Amino acid sequence: MRILIVNGPNLNLLGKREPQIYGNQSFEEYMEYLKTSSTAEISNFQSNVEGELINALQGSDHDGIILNAGGYTHTSVALRDCVAAIDVPVVEVHISNITSREEFRHTSLISPVAVGCIFGFGLDGYRVALSYFDLNKR
Amino acid sequence: MRILIVNGPNLNLLGKREPQIYGNQSFEEYMEYLKTSSTAEISNFQSNVEGELINALQGSDHDGIILNAGGYTHTSVALRDCVAAIDVPVVEVHISNITSREEFRHTSLISPVAVGCIFGFGLDGYRVALSYFDLNKR
Amino acid sequence: MRILIVNGPNLNLLGKREPQIYGNQSFEEYMEYLKTSSTAEISNFQSNVEGELINALQGSDHDGIILNAGGYTHTSVALRDCVAAIDVPVVEVHISNITSREEFRHTSLISPVAVGCIFGFGLDGYRVALSYFDLNKR
Amino acid sequence: MRILIVNGPNLNLLGKREPQIYGNQSFEEYMEYLKTSSTAEISNFQSNVEGELINALQGSDHDGIILNAGGYTHTSVALRDCVAAIDVPVVEVHISNITSREEFRHTSLISPVAVGCIFGFGLDGYRVALSYFDLNKR
Amino acid sequence: MRILIVNGPNLNLLGKREPQIYGNQSFEEYMEYLKTSSTAEISNFQSNVEGELINALQGSDHDGIILNAGGYTHTSVALRDCVAAIDVPVVEVHISNITSREEFRHTSLISPVAVGCIFGFGLDGYRVALSYFDLNKR
Amino acid sequence: MRILIVNGPNLNLLGKREPQIYGNQSFEEYMEYLKTSSTAEISNFQSNVEGELINALQGSDHDGIILNAGGYTHTSVALRDCVAAIDVPVVEVHISNITSREEFRHTSLISPVAVGCIFGFGLDGYRVALSYFDLNKR
Amino acid sequence: MRILIVNGPNLNLLGKREPQIYGNQSFEEYMEYLKTSSTAEISNFQSNVEGELINALQGSDHDGIILNAGGYTHTSVALRDCVAAIDVPVVEVHISNITSREEFRHTSLISPVAVGCIFGFGLDGYRVALSYFDLNKR
Amino acid sequence: MRILIVNGPNLNLLGKREPQIYGNQSFEEYMEYLKTSSTAEISNFQSNVEGELINALQGSDHDGIILNAGGYTHTSVALRDCVAAIDVPVVEVHISNITSREEFRHTSLISPVAVGCIFGFGLDGYRVALSYFDLNKR
Amino acid sequence: MRILIVNGPNLNLLGKREPQIYGNQSFEEYMEYLKTSSTAEISNFQSNVEGELINALQGSDHDGIILNAGGYTHTSVALRDCVAAIDVPVVEVHISNITSREEFRHTSLISPVAVGCIFGFGLDGYRVALSYFDLNKR
Amino acid sequence: MRILIVNGPNLNLLGKREPQIYGNQSFEEYMEYLKTSSTAEISNFQSNVEGELINALQGSDHDGIILNAGGYTHTSVALRDCVAAIDVPVVEVHISNITSREEFRHTSLISPVAVGCIFGFGLDGYRVALSYFDLNKR
Amino acid sequence: MRILIVNGPNLNLLGKREPQIYGNQSFEEYMEYLKTSSTAEISNFQSNVEGELINALQGSDHDGIILNAGGYTHTSVALRDCVAAIDVPVVEVHISNITSREEFRHTSLISPVAVGCIFGFGLDGYRVALSYFDLNKR
Amino acid sequence: MRILIVNGPNLNLLGKREPQIYGNQSFEEYMEYLKTSSTAEISNFQSNVEGELINALQGSDHDGIILNAGGYTHTSVALRDCVAAIDVPVVEVHISNITSREEFRHTSLISPVAVGCIFGFGLDGYRVALSYFDLNKR
Repeated sequence: MRILIVNGPNLNLLGKREPQIYGNQSFEEYMEYLKTSSTAEISNFQSNVEGELINALQGSDHDGIILNAGGYTHTSVALRDCVAAIDVPVVEVHISNITSREEFRHTSLISPVAVGCIFGFGLDGYRVALSYFDLNKR
Repeated sequence: MRILIVNGPNLNLLGKREPQIYGNQSFEEYMEYLKTSSTAEISNFQSNVEGELINALQGSDHDGIILNAGGYTHTSVALRDCVAAIDVPVVEVHISNITSREEFRHTSLISPVAVGCIFGFGLDGYRVALSYFDLNKR
Repeated sequence: MRILIVNGPNLNLLGKREPQIYGNQSFEEYMEYLKTSSTAEISNFQSNVEGELINALQGSDHDGIILNAGGYTHTSVALRDCVAAIDVPVVEVHISNITSREEFRHTSLISPVAVGCIFGFGLDGYRVALSYFDLNKR
Repeated sequence: MRILIVNGPNLNLLGKREPQIYGNQSFEEYMEYLKTSSTAEISNFQSNVEGELINALQGSDHDGIILNAGGYTHTSVALRDCVAAIDVPVVEVHISNITSREEFRHTSLISPVAVGCIFGFGLDGYRVALSYFDLNKR
Repeated sequence: MRILIVNGPNLNLLGKREPQIYGNQSFEEYMEYLKTSSTAEISNFQSNVEGELINALQGSDHDGIILNAGGYTHTSVALRDCVAAIDVPVVEVHISNITSREEFRHTSLISPVAVGCIFGFGLDGYRVALSYFDLNKR
Repeated sequence: MRILIVNGPNLNLLGKREPQIYGNQSFEEYMEYLKTSSTAEISNFQSNVEGELINALQGSDHDGIILNAGGYTHTSVALRDCVAAIDVPVVEVHISNITSREEFRHTSLISPVAVGCIFGFGLDGYRVALSYFDLNKR
Repeated sequence: MRILIVNGPNLNLLGKREPQIYGNQSFEEYMEYLKTSSTAEISNFQSNVEGELINALQGSDHDGIILNAGGYTHTSVALRDCVAAIDVPVVEVHISNITSREEFRHTSLISPVAVGCIFGFGLDGYRVALSYFDLNKR
Repeated sequence: MRILIVNGPNLNLLGKREPQIYGNQSFEEYMEYLKTSSTAEISNFQSNVEGELINALQGSDHDGIILNAGGYTHTSVALRDCVAAIDVPVVEVHISNITSREEFRHTSLISPVAVGCIFGFGLDGYRVALSYFDLNKR
Repeated sequence: MRILIVNGPNLNLLGKREPQIYGNQSFEEYMEYLKTSSTAEISNFQSNVEGELINALQGSDHDGIILNAGGYTHTSVALRDCVAAIDVPVVEVHISNITSREEFRHTSLISPVAVGCIFGFGLDGYRVALSYFDLNKR
Repeated sequence: MRILIVNGPNLNLLGKREPQIYGNQSFEEYMEYLKTSSTAEISNFQSNVEGELINALQGSDHDGIILNAGGYTHTSVALRDCVAAIDVPVVEVHISNITSREEFRHTSLISPVAVGCIFGFGLDGYRVALSYFDLNKR
Repeated sequence: MRILIVNGPNLNLLGKREPQIYGNQSFEEYMEYLKTSSTAEISNFQSNVEGELINALQGSDHDGIILNAGGYTHTSVALRDCVAAIDVPVVEVHISNITSREEFRHTSLISPVAVGCIFGFGLDGYRVALSYFDLNKR
Repeated sequence: MRILIVNGPNLNLLGKREPQIYGNQSFEEYMEYLKTSSTAEISNFQSNVEGELINALQGSDHDGIILNAGGYTHTSVALRDCVAAIDVPVVEVHISNITSREEFRHTSLISPVAVGCIFGFGLDGYRVALSYFDLNKR
C-alpha cells in the first residue's frame, strides 16, 4: 500500500513556529516515526503554492492521500474540485482542532468531498489517518 | 485501558434502517469486532434521552470516551457543557460525513470541546478513534 | 387501520392553560370524540421527554402516526432523524398556526421528513389528519 | 355549503408535466372525484395572472376558499393582503411538501393569514381541506 | 412563602468542576446558607433531563420558582412553553454572565417569558432572586 | 397641472375592509374631496394586476404621478424599473406607516427611484403629496 | 397652531457644504419663507448633541413637531424612545431620499414611532410636512 | 428551426428610455437584423404582465425559447416553475450585466432552470443565444 | 457603603409617560423608598446626554454603581468602554424585560462588561441590585 | 482577430474526470474543432496556479480573452482585479450552469468586471463566446 | 502648518486605565513629545460628548485633523457626516488594532470618509499620522 | 535597519493601469524616492503567486516587512497564517482606502495579525509605514 501525505502552506514551519498551536516536532522528524509505524510505503509533499498542491493531487497514483491543506482548507474551491475529481481516496487531517479556533476556520471546503475528516489530535492525526487506510487495505 | 463508547439517539437502529447512510451492521455486531481488535477494555451505552447521555458521561471513570451524540450533536448545549466539565477525554465520532449532508448537520456543538473529531469513515470511525487512545496509552 | 397519536411537551396541559391559544378542551375529552368519528383504532401517547417520544415512534407498528411534537418541533434533530428512519408514515399536526406566531416557531425540523403537514385548525387538525389516513386506507 | 377552489400559476399543467412532483391526474379529472366526495357545492378557478387571482378572491361570496397559490405563494404580498382583507375563510393547500423542496419554497406569505395550512398530501390535500369545512359546517 | 429552585443540566457538578466559571461551593452547601437567609420555605430540584425539568415546573404549586435551566436555556422551546403556560411566576438566574461568554449563550429562550432575569452574580444570584420574592411578598 | 393617482392591489377595498388599518372612507369619496382641494386636474387608476400598473405608468403623459403600489411595493422590480424609466416624476404614498408594520413591509423597491416618499398619514398622504406638486408648479 | 422644527447634527451646515446633496440654501433663509407660507407659528431648534435634541423634544408643548434627526436617525434608540414617550405628534422629515443613499441610511429608528414620514423632497419636505399639520388643524 | 423570443416588462421601452443602460435601438429594429442573420424562423412576444409571459411559454411549440424576463427575473417563482415544466429548451438573456448592477439583480430565479445564461452583451446577447441553437440544430 | 444610581435618557419621564411600560411612580419618589430600605448611602444622577453619563461614571468614587443606560444600552460603545475602564463595580438594571420587547432591545452593549444584569422587575430592580451590594459588603 | 482562451484549475482534466458534469471530450480535441469553426486565430493556456493565470492575462495582447477561471471564479479577488485592470476585453465562460450547483458557486467575482457571461452550454459555451467576438469584429 | 488632534470618549483616561490595551503614558505627556517632533503647530481637544466632537470638527480651520473617535467610531453616523462635510482633511487614528478586538470594533463608520486610516501602532500612530501631513506640506 | 517591501498581485501594473485608483507612478520609480528618504536599507519583492509571497515572508530576516497583499488581502488565510507565524514585524499598507471601495474589500484577513495598518494614503502609505519603523529603531 502506497500513501501520499500532502501538506499545504506554512506546514514547513512545523516545530519551528507557534509551538503552542502546532507542537515542537518538525514534520521531517515525524515522518521518520510514521514510516516505522506502518507497513505502508509513505511519501510526503509540501508546498505553499495552491496550484502546486493541485498538481500533486492530480499526479498521484497512490492508494490513498492524507491531505492537510492548511490555510487553503477554508478558501480553495479549486483544491476541493481537484479532490472531488481524482480517483485516489483523500482523508483530511488537521493538527489543531479547527472547530475551536477563529470562526473562519470552522468551515472546510475540503471536508464534504473527502472520504473522512480527522481534526485536533496533533501530529497523531496523521497516524490515526493511516489506521483508516490500514483497516481498509485488509 | 478502559474505554466507554456512548451512542446517542437512533443509533440503536444501526443496521436496521437507512442502510444507504448507516450501513447494514448492527452496533452490537460491530462491538464484537471492536473488542477483538484492541487490548483496551471496551464497553458501550446507548440512549435516546439527552439527559441520560449526560448522566452517563458524568458517571464515567474510564480512560477515554468515544461519543457519537447523533442528532443531539447539533443542538445540545447541555451535552457540550458536560463534555467540557468532565475530566475524561472525549473523542467525537460520526459514522457519516456530516459536512456533506444537510446544512444543519455541518455544525457540531460537541467538536470545540472534544479532544478531536473523526467524521465519515462509517463504523470504522470507532476503530480509528480507538487507535488514538492506543497511541496515547503508550 | 391502527393509528397512533403522539403528543409532545406541554400538550398534557391542553384545556388547562392558555385557552386563547389552545382552546378549552382537554386532549382526553377530544380523544373520546375522535374515536367515535372514524373506523380506525386510535391510541395516543404523550410525554414531555424528547427521548421518550423517540422511543414511542421507534416502537410503533401502527398504520400511521399523527405527531404533534410541541416545542421539540423546532429544535429536535433527533426526533427528525427518528421520523425519517422508521417505516410508519408520519403526519405532522399543530393546533395553532405556527407560521403566524414567534419567528422561531416558523421552521419545523419535522416537516421535511413528514408525509404531510397540517397547521392551524385547532384540535380539528387531528381529525383532518385522520381523514388523510381514511382516504389512503381505501 | 359552497366552496371555491382557487389554483395559481402552472397548476393548469397538472397531470401533463413533472409527474414525479405533481402526479399524473389533471385537476379537471380530480374535480369530478371531489364533487362526488362531499355534499358541498364545489367550483374552481385557475389563472396564471396574480391580479386575476386577487380579483377572484375579492369577488368570492362562498362559505370557504381552498387556495393553492403556486409560485405566488412565496412572493405575493398583494395576494396575502387580499386573503387578510376578505371575510371568506381561506385554507392554504400545496400538493407537494414545500418544506422539503428548494429553500425559497419554505416560506409562504399566505400561511400566516390563512385559517390553516395543508402541505404534502398530493391531490388528496384538497380533499383533506374539504374535510375541515365539512367539520365546521356541522 | 414557598419557593422552588429548579436547576438544569450539569448544575449537579457545581463546586466539583470548572471552578474558574462556577466557583468552589456545591449547591447543597449553598442551600444551607439560603435557607437561613430568608423566611421563605425553600426547596430545590435538579435534573439533567429536559422533560423532567418540565414535569417539575408543571407540578409546582409554589409561590415562586427560581429557574437556572443551564444549557437548555439556549435551546429549549419546550421549557419556554412550559414557563409561559404555568401560573407560578418564574425568575431566571444564571451563575455566570452569559452575555460575556460564547455567542450561542447570549440568547435565552426563557428570558422573554420569565418575570425577570438575573445574570452574572455567581451563587449570589439565587439570593438576589429571593430578594425579589421577599419584596413582593410584603 | 395634470396629476395621475395610481393605486395598486386591494386599494379598491378602501373603506370596505380592515378599517383599523385603512379607515372608513372609499377612495372614490376621497377623490371628490381631493379634486376640490387643488387647482390641479386629478385623475386616478386602480388595478390588481402588476402589469396593468406598469402599462398605466408607461402610458402617462401627466405632470406628476402619485403612486401607492400596495403589496407590489415590496416585491416588484418590474414596477421599480418602470418608475425609473419614465420621465413623469413619481411620488410614493402609503396610507399606513409601513415602517411600523410587518418586517417585509419595511423595504420599498419603489422608494429609491421615486422623487420622494410619504408614509403614514392615512388618506391625507395623497393631499400632502399634491402639496409637493403644487409647490413645484409655482 | 404652534409648530417646532427640530434639526439634528450637521444641519447647521445646510447651504454651506455638500450642495449636491443638501442644496444651496441655509436653513435660516428657508425659515423666512416657511413663516410666510403658513398661518402656523413656527420656531426651530438645532443641535449637534443627541441629548439636547431629547431635551428639546421633552420640553416641547407645541401642536406638532417636525423632526429631522440627521445622522442620529439611524442610530439613536434614545431619541426614538423620546418620540414615543411625548404627547406632541412628530412628523419625520429628511431632505435627501435616504432610501437611495448608503445602506446604513435605509433604516430609521424614528420612523416607526412617528406619525408619518416624508423623505426626498429637499427643503420642500418641511413645507410638505406643514401641510399635514395644516390639514389636521382644520 | 423555429425560435420564440419572449421579452418581459419594460423591454417595450428599449431604444426609448435609459439609453446608457439599454442602448438606442428599439427591439423591433433589432428583430429585422436578427431575422436576416440566421436561417431560423424567429418570432417574438412582449408583455408587462407576469401571467401573460407564463401563458406564452406554456403555449409555445417552438424548437427553442430565448427569454429575457426583465424585472420578473429576480422575483418570479411562477415564471421559474413554468420554465422548468415545459419541454421547449429556454436560454436566458439579459442585455445588461446584471451582476454589476444593484445587488437585488444579482440573483436570477430563472437561471438554475434554464439551459444556459448569457448576460451583458447588449442586444448582441440575443444573437449570441441564437448561435447556441444554430450549433445544436446541426 | 456608598452607591451611585446612574439613569440614562428619558428616565426623567418615569411615572409621567407610558405607564403600561414603566409604571406610575417617579424616580424621585422611588428614591425616598430606596434610601429607607438599605443602610447604604445612595445618590442618583440622570442625564439625556451620552457623554455626561460617561463623565459621571468616570468621576465616581463610590463602592458600586447601578446603571440603567436607557436607550444608550443598545448603541453606546463609548459607555461600554467607560464601564470596562473604571474600577467601581457596575450592576446593569432595566425596568422592563428588554428581552421581550423589540429585537433591537435584546442586545445590551453594557451587559458583557457589567458585574451582573437585572432585567424586568420594574422599579424593584434597583432594590434587587442593592441587595447584591448588601450581600457583598458583608 | 486573435483570441486567447484561458482555462483555470482542473480544466486539464476535461474529458478524463466527472463526465456527468464536464462531458467526455478533452479540451485539446475541442480546440481542433474551435479552430476550424472561426476565422479568428485562437490559442489557449491552462494552469492550476492562480498567479500564473494572472500573469497570462497581464501578458496578453490579443483582441479578446475567453476566461474560464474554474474554482478561482468564486474566490479570487486577485484575478478579478487583473481582469478589471487590463485593456483586452474578457468574456467569462463556464461549462456547467454554476447557478444550479452548490451555493458557493452561484457568485462569480469575475462576472461584474467581464464584458459578458456565458454559463451552462457545455463546451459549446466557448463557441458561443467566439460568436460574440465574431459579431464585434465586423 | 497647523494640525488639530481630536480625541473621543474615554481617551482622557489614557495612561490611567487598562494599560494592557492603551499603555502607561497620558496623552498630555505624549503631546509634549509630539510638539517637539514636528515643525507643525499642534493642538488637541478631547470630549466624551459626541456632539461636542462634531462642534470641534465643524469649527476647525486647521490644515489637517487627526481624529481618534474612540467608541463613537463604530456607531456615529453623525460624526461621519461631519467628517464628510468639512473641508479640512481628516486622518483616522486608533491606538489599538481595532481589527483584532471584538467584532463590533472591526467596522469604522469614519474610515470611508477619512483621507486615510492608521490602526494599531499605539501612541506612535499619532506621530505616524503627522508624518503624512509633513509629507504633503512639502 | 533593513526593511523588505512585499507587493502582491497586480501591483506590478502600478502607474500603468487604472490611474484613477492607483496613480501614475510605477513602483520602481517610487522605490528610488523611498530609498533616498530614509536611512533604512530598503528592498522590494513582487509576485502574482500567493505561495511565492508566503515563501518571501518565510525567508525574510529583515527588521521589518511592509506588506501590500493586493487582492489576496481579503481571501488568503494562508498568507495570514504566515504573517502570524514569522518573527519579523509586518505593517500592512494599502494604496487606496479599502474601506470605501466594494464591500468585499472592507475586511482584511491580514490586519488582525499585523503590527498595524495604514490605508488610503496612496503611495505615501509606504513612506508613512517606514516612519513607524524609523520611530521604533530609535
